[in-house]
Amino acid sequence: MSEGEALNIDSIMAMFAGSPFIAALEMEVTELDAAAGRIRLRMPMTAFSERAKGTNQFHGGALASLVDVAGDFAVALAVGGAVPTIDLRVDYLRPAFGPHVDAEATARRVGRTVGIADVDVLGADGKLVTIGRGCYSAKVG
Amino acid sequence: MSEGEALNIDSIMAMFAGSPFIAALEMEVTELDAAAGRIRLRMPMTAFSERAKGTNQFHGGALASLVDVAGDFAVALAVGGAVPTIDLRVDYLRPAFGPHVDAEATARRVGRTVGIADVDVLGADGKLVTIGRGCYSAKVG
Amino acid sequence: MSEGEALNIDSIMAMFAGSPFIAALEMEVTELDAAAGRIRLRMPMTAFSERAKGTNQFHGGALASLVDVAGDFAVALAVGGAVPTIDLRVDYLRPAFGPHVDAEATARRVGRTVGIADVDVLGADGKLVTIGRGCYSAKVG
Amino acid sequence: MSEGEALNIDSIMAMFAGSPFIAALEMEVTELDAAAGRIRLRMPMTAFSERAKGTNQFHGGALASLVDVAGDFAVALAVGGAVPTIDLRVDYLRPAFGPHVDAEATARRVGRTVGIADVDVLGADGKLVTIGRGCYSAKVG
Repeated sequence: MSEGEALNIDSIMAMFAGSPFIAALEMEVTELDAAAGRIRLRMPMTAFSERAKGTNQFHGGALASLVDVAGDFAVALAVGGAVPTIDLRVDYLRPAFGPHVDAEATARRVGRTVGIADVDVLGADGKLVTIGRGCYSAKVG
Repeated sequence: MSEGEALNIDSIMAMFAGSPFIAALEMEVTELDAAAGRIRLRMPMTAFSERAKGTNQFHGGALASLVDVAGDFAVALAVGGAVPTIDLRVDYLRPAFGPHVDAEATARRVGRTVGIADVDVLGADGKLVTIGRGCYSAKVG
Repeated sequence: MSEGEALNIDSIMAMFAGSPFIAALEMEVTELDAAAGRIRLRMPMTAFSERAKGTNQFHGGALASLVDVAGDFAVALAVGGAVPTIDLRVDYLRPAFGPHVDAEATARRVGRTVGIADVDVLGADGKLVTIGRGCYSAKVG
Repeated sequence: MSEGEALNIDSIMAMFAGSPFIAALEMEVTELDAAAGRIRLRMPMTAFSERAKGTNQFHGGALASLVDVAGDFAVALAVGGAVPTIDLRVDYLRPAFGPHVDAEATARRVGRTVGIADVDVLGADGKLVTIGRGCYSAKVG
């Protein structure tokens, strides 16, 4: 994809397919509003996302990964491609159970140097389980 | 393991084996100094840790996961078992290439309520690639 | 104030008056919704809040202080009194000019151990200038 | 000061004098190692740094301000002047009592876009009271 071309669900899903890590976690884009800088991802519980066998709880690292990717693509909507993460912050509010979680990411500001996104992660019952915030380069990396 | 019993490399590796997520990332404890609150983990590049096919670079989510686990067990050394993560912060300083990265985690303070750990992640060439800091519950969870 | 008694604008302003630091920054509670865990503070530009003489811009430390206090009292609404800060994160999106800024703080979750609050800081023109997030003890300290 | 000219204790103290906020908190540079990216600041307890009258404890906002300034000038040593703060994280480990605290800041990495600094804040008894980490623009602002 050339920079400047608008991202959409299909083009982002193609990038996800090219990332072994994102593909293994089976993240999927379910909604996207480029003008608002908003994207929604779903991540299912898979054979290796569990924090401990039989808990049906996501490992915190899987949730941090979802926050990173969701925030990245919220900023990407403004700059036209995936961006390097500068820093990432994740707060774990409640245990996150399967069968899936949804991440709602919103770009709060995209300037010339960096972009900041907020991410709320909801459990399958709609309850907030994790919140995250990421600072990304505003240049496609 | 009962609370209070000292953790060691073998008992932590047994916990890692019981975590599908940690096992999939093939994290391994390589050094441990319980009295100093220090632990060192190695994470190899595997088929699914790559951020994009052919880059030989770790995905930021894999690095965040390593930071989370390393910091958790630095605090665990003081409290006798794995602890819930309250929040996690990760700064990405340089691209992290395979064949592996090493995380050196140190507990900075473990109080009655929370424990704080710092994590430096080094590339195979010994250069600092990522730094993290986590706040954990000080009670085995 | 005994724990459990509901906080209101007057009781919080009395606590502010007892804090030399908050009083010096002239923070004021302008709105409060205890049921929603929301509080709004205003901080005027004063003789010593400026980052450099003649800029009419708040120093980042003054904004971090506002975020800390606003988030603290958003959690305090649920627990009945001011709480110790465990950690604080502040993102600076745009320069913050006088004559004042407003902080809108919302508790995202208050559990048995910790409470988490989000804080948006708006300039006098209503633009978002700074965002913050704090983790606090859930026990009055 | 023109960019590129080396910063030293005197030139930084002159900048501090030009900042009403830093001057009010009476921060002072006590050590500086430009080659190592290290700077040490002292902040005394003053009439308005107290979190509550008679506690002799620094307000968390004063400590966050010290972390911000110390980290900023650790990065500044590499780029030749004070830099805009992008984001700031502060962890409060223990209450910080007067008569003063010392902040030891070290640049962990200064790249083309951003610089990252770590800050340890020690009480007058030498105990670690607060730790911070800041991300700054790598361009003088």
